[in-house]
Amino acid sequence: MEKFSSLARFKSSCPFLGGTKTSTLRALGSAISPRFPSISQLTERAASCPIMGPALVMRSTQMVAGYASVAGQADVQNIHHSKGIFPGTSVSEADISKCPHASAARAAARMADDLAAASTTKAPEAKKEVPSTAQRAAAAGCPFHKAAAAKEQPVKLSEVTETQTTPATPDAYKYDKFYAAELEKKHKDQSYRYFNNINRLATKFPIAHTASVKEEVQVWCANDYLGMGNNPVVLETMHRALDKYGAGAGGTRNIAGNSAMHLGLERELATLHRKESALVFSSCYVANDATLSTLGSKLPGCVYFSDASNHASMIQGIRHSGAKKEIFKHNDLDDLEAKLKKYPKDTPKIIAFESVYSMCGSIGPIKEICDLAKKYGALTFLDEVHAVGLYGPRGAGVAEHLDWESHQMAGQTFEPIKDSVMDRIDMITGTLGKAYGTVGGYVAGSRNFIDMIRSYAPGFIFTTSLPPATVAGARASVIYQKHHVGDRALKQVNVRTVKERFAALDIPVVPGPSHIVPVLVGDAGLAKVASDKLLCEHGIYVQAINFPTVAVGEERLRVTVTPRHTAEQIDGLITAMDTVFTELKINRISDWAKLGGRANVGIGKESVEPIWSNAQINTAGQPQTLHDGDMALVDVNVVQVVRKSFEDLLGPIELSETETIQMKVEAVLMTGAVEHIAGALPKKVKAPRIPVNPIDMPVAPTVAVSA
Amino acid sequence: MEKFSSLARFKSSCPFLGGTKTSTLRALGSAISPRFPSISQLTERAASCPIMGPALVMRSTQMVAGYASVAGQADVQNIHHSKGIFPGTSVSEADISKCPHASAARAAARMADDLAAASTTKAPEAKKEVPSTAQRAAAAGCPFHKAAAAKEQPVKLSEVTETQTTPATPDAYKYDKFYAAELEKKHKDQSYRYFNNINRLATKFPIAHTASVKEEVQVWCANDYLGMGNNPVVLETMHRALDKYGAGAGGTRNIAGNSAMHLGLERELATLHRKESALVFSSCYVANDATLSTLGSKLPGCVYFSDASNHASMIQGIRHSGAKKEIFKHNDLDDLEAKLKKYPKDTPKIIAFESVYSMCGSIGPIKEICDLAKKYGALTFLDEVHAVGLYGPRGAGVAEHLDWESHQMAGQTFEPIKDSVMDRIDMITGTLGKAYGTVGGYVAGSRNFIDMIRSYAPGFIFTTSLPPATVAGARASVIYQKHHVGDRALKQVNVRTVKERFAALDIPVVPGPSHIVPVLVGDAGLAKVASDKLLCEHGIYVQAINFPTVAVGEERLRVTVTPRHTAEQIDGLITAMDTVFTELKINRISDWAKLGGRANVGIGKESVEPIWSNAQINTAGQPQTLHDGDMALVDVNVVQVVRKSFEDLLGPIELSETETIQMKVEAVLMTGAVEHIAGALPKKVKAPRIPVNPIDMPVAPTVAVSA
Repeated sequence: MEKFSSLARFKSSCPFLGGTKTSTLRALGSAISPRFPSISQLTERAASCPIMGPALVMRSTQMVAGYASVAGQADVQNIHHSKGIFPGTSVSEADISKCPHASAARAAARMADDLAAASTTKAPEAKKEVPSTAQRAAAAGCPFHKAAAAKEQPVKLSEVTETQTTPATPDAYKYDKFYAAELEKKHKDQSYRYFNNINRLATKFPIAHTASVKEEVQVWCANDYLGMGNNPVVLETMHRALDKYGAGAGGTRNIAGNSAMHLGLERELATLHRKESALVFSSCYVANDATLSTLGSKLPGCVYFSDASNHASMIQGIRHSGAKKEIFKHNDLDDLEAKLKKYPKDTPKIIAFESVYSMCGSIGPIKEICDLAKKYGALTFLDEVHAVGLYGPRGAGVAEHLDWESHQMAGQTFEPIKDSVMDRIDMITGTLGKAYGTVGGYVAGSRNFIDMIRSYAPGFIFTTSLPPATVAGARASVIYQKHHVGDRALKQVNVRTVKERFAALDIPVVPGPSHIVPVLVGDAGLAKVASDKLLCEHGIYVQAINFPTVAVGEERLRVTVTPRHTAEQIDGLITAMDTVFTELKINRISDWAKLGGRANVGIGKESVEPIWSNAQINTAGQPQTLHDGDMALVDVNVVQVVRKSFEDLLGPIELSETETIQMKVEAVLMTGAVEHIAGALPKKVKAPRIPVNPIDMPVAPTVAVSA
Repeated sequence: MEKFSSLARFKSSCPFLGGTKTSTLRALGSAISPRFPSISQLTERAASCPIMGPALVMRSTQMVAGYASVAGQADVQNIHHSKGIFPGTSVSEADISKCPHASAARAAARMADDLAAASTTKAPEAKKEVPSTAQRAAAAGCPFHKAAAAKEQPVKLSEVTETQTTPATPDAYKYDKFYAAELEKKHKDQSYRYFNNINRLATKFPIAHTASVKEEVQVWCANDYLGMGNNPVVLETMHRALDKYGAGAGGTRNIAGNSAMHLGLERELATLHRKESALVFSSCYVANDATLSTLGSKLPGCVYFSDASNHASMIQGIRHSGAKKEIFKHNDLDDLEAKLKKYPKDTPKIIAFESVYSMCGSIGPIKEICDLAKKYGALTFLDEVHAVGLYGPRGAGVAEHLDWESHQMAGQTFEPIKDSVMDRIDMITGTLGKAYGTVGGYVAGSRNFIDMIRSYAPGFIFTTSLPPATVAGARASVIYQKHHVGDRALKQVNVRTVKERFAALDIPVVPGPSHIVPVLVGDAGLAKVASDKLLCEHGIYVQAINFPTVAVGEERLRVTVTPRHTAEQIDGLITAMDTVFTELKINRISDWAKLGGRANVGIGKESVEPIWSNAQINTAGQPQTLHDGDMALVDVNVVQVVRKSFEDLLGPIELSETETIQMKVEAVLMTGAVEHIAGALPKKVKAPRIPVNPIDMPVAPTVAVSA
């Protein structure tokens, strides 16, 4: 019955798995290495096993694909050695928590749990129960699966072999087979996505619990870039708006769903970008799609010039417009100009591009693209989704950042700054769901342009508007970041640290001037296993990014560093990544150099000057990385500015004299998620941390939030 | 200088406007009647006035278009007479609050405020200030504009005559002119949308405040169909989730944005529709668009069969798929079959349709369409957006409603009911933003179908997921309505009352079996003026629905009646509508009959049997319309069910013994938006209202919420 010699080796080499059936090992051990048979091969061969075959085929398609490989003996010994576990040690003697098989098994079990929770729990039409991986493993005596197996829901054969509704006509198209075939494609090219169950805890940022509320991990890949999702005044504003205006908007913007909160947010965003108007959408995906598709379909003979690395939402919007499209090489001005030249001056043209490209961390040549746009009579459409809140003295994005001094001097005014880069961009889109920590998207531009989109875009017109509490929270966040530079400055400090420490360990990071830290792995299976190992063995959650989001061979772990990650957490990340790189023998910079480089790694381009200069960082004082137990900074004066902005709708928040003094003089501890917000700040007081302010820009007194 | 004799008449006939400049009157008086020159005519002629001309041209384009007509003397006298105001009465003697010109002026001023708030407030590049309508009116001595004018922001010429960024090349395409021309089209065909500033108050449902927090109106057109947006347990769950998990999801579902809350909601929705799986999107617009475009573009040679009245989101999804499309006449089975017949059996086909069509209130022949789908080997895609929460014993929609008894008997199980209509539908989409009172949309269907959409739809994959607090609130709402039939039953009672009372007054309602009450007006300008009059003179907000949402000539006021509207509020609506119909001489049923009928009105089809039978309504006891001051019912047992559902993530809510007794025995007053919900129900106790339960279905004890 045993067909895989590698499995036998694997089994004999692990002290924990001696009594386990080989067929079970096939699923379990698969978590270790990506260098073995593909899932389809495994599935095919497993099917020939009379006992576990059918179940394995099913489970492998459903669940195990991500782990579709079996470790060779060398790998196992290697891992055991590095973890202090050796063959021959009995189970009771060995440190179970260190066994990579155990953690891999836990990962598999967790994934089974998640999948079960996602869709299996109450699956109808049960016909025949088949034990799951975890259950089979537990039955086979594997101690690490018992708990998971006990919790796990049975998987039903019927779920895989048939769907609920099948057209009765025998010659009808076989829809079920089509769905299954489309999914099989995803499994085959390893682009099938497994969703981790991650519950980010507001009071413990950047900690989340997993499917179990008791199991906590550090999140290192969320796009809540600044932790604004738990900023006290954002939560306070949302609680108050929720109480006053309820859970939903109750209609489209045109029918009962247009409130002062919506108008206020749009005014705030227009002011942020120094544009005449702004329009809020359900998401920036919708903002990009709706704006580009509407504009391109209306402008007669319009041609789009689209950066090759543009986000899916822009690609969709351009496609949906039906307009002609020219794709220019990523950030390549020569290629763009060559393509612009092909068309008459009076042809309507739109250059669509991004400021920060989120998967590689590069930054678009905004100014130079504006020059070309002017020369060839094109409009400019700039997606600042990964930049708003993070760049510029007021957080308006890279376009603002490029004229830092002018915008800093102009301060909280709304006037456009003549000839500034931001002024030269016609349309800016941004999100409220990343640095601003809430949800939603928007576009800003001239009044008539915005009014045109407002009047014609079905994706704006025919949809329920965002809840008043949501837009209120988003606006609170925008106002806060407009007035407080500290979070984004500290973020840059931490990003620099992480990049430098990875470089020192020869760990490859795709070079770039932005806050994105893409750790190159260069193989889909390896990236997935590295991500799983980080999660299961180190409690560090960094999602693997595979094709089609990045090119095949450029798979990566996209690390996002926030101002709220502590020095100790950073240490932990660096060590864990180093360990995983060693264990999985992932190429380091020097390895890539020998191979001629990959994704700009290993070709001597590692050192890219960050877009945030030292002087810009120091406008926030000298931001200090937090330590475990430290309190994060909250700018109390800005909290008051935010509250003032909502006074007309939500009323004043009355503070006692003591509280006011406490706030202003001592600085007050605000827990990440205010206990409740009824009217005053929480009372707990700790030692204040007032940062040094070495530069002449006035910085407000700050108070601390527990990190 | 006076070119309009009608203006002179208008001026002389109104006691309040004697001293006002004629040019000002042109803007003000325009609010009264739709039977005068079009906006473009007015604009053209006004431009020739050397003093006010340019300003008026600008403001008319910007703001006054909706009121673009001037009352004839007969109209004015008519209105004055009906309101008890006569020419010759001095200002001090007349009842100013009754003067329709005054309220029209207030409406214009409010609109100016709203527009100003929306985009003018901080308009950059001021060059030359031009007084606004309200300011000019105030300057001219009109007493009703002073307050508005004082608040109003100046409008700047530069805003209209140029935009911020214009390509410098002289031969470049003129984008600004293009935007302006597109907007002008909207003004010309009267489809330009003015958004009312409506702030629905959770504690005073169905009351909202306008741009002024002190000015309150009744909302009669929101799609928060049941008032779930302020249901105490929905708000409580959201507050708790907000505190625990923060303001946003922090990522896409694949990267850090997939939480137990998301999985829980999807499980809940799958169970609701008795399907294997469900998938949540930013909105149902996105759900429809993403599902239909993905499916149609993937299925080889797919043909869509789309009801002519389908929602914009379905139309877009089908268009974006690039698949072939056949549009069948609204609810016309013969036409559908004729079109299905044209294609071979093995051609992939999808019939896309709705259960409740929201603008006319008709209901799709779901069962019969399933029969055709079976016969011709087609998939069925049913949009239940205006039905979920509102139909069926568990609120799963019309498909569930059609097999009421079977679903009621099956109760809170998840198994599909063989051969039931809901089971025969392959894909059901629904919204969380209407009856469920929150925001978001979803699709439910077979596991592989859902997994395929999850794996391929860019609109799902590449967007930040909804915040955990939002999906938690949505799930709380779904659970509540699954277990509590009272709200939707009472809604039907009130809908019947309103329809009957309109019929008794010969006021035309487009006939239909659903909860939608479309009051036919039959003219775009008239519908807008009627809506404005209801709002300004009666404090009743019902949005006018014009082309392209409905056909030209079928313009209407779409009234939505909720279980929370009181008998007195219903009286007020009926009286106000009757008054406005009289004042504006809008056609009644008998008038349409003489004209041969319009939109099924006046052709003897008024009486349509409602889809909710008496017996079905009575499963909720005998629901009683609330009276002013009454408390609305909240089912305390279901509140406990909801809390229990979140206990794993949010922990238990501990009630003192007294509180428990209070809850169960006495029933507790819960204010619409719980003051705060930290752990227990609010303490205020009023007399309980336990409804009678004449039918054998067990009904939980209920407590009251102030209406």
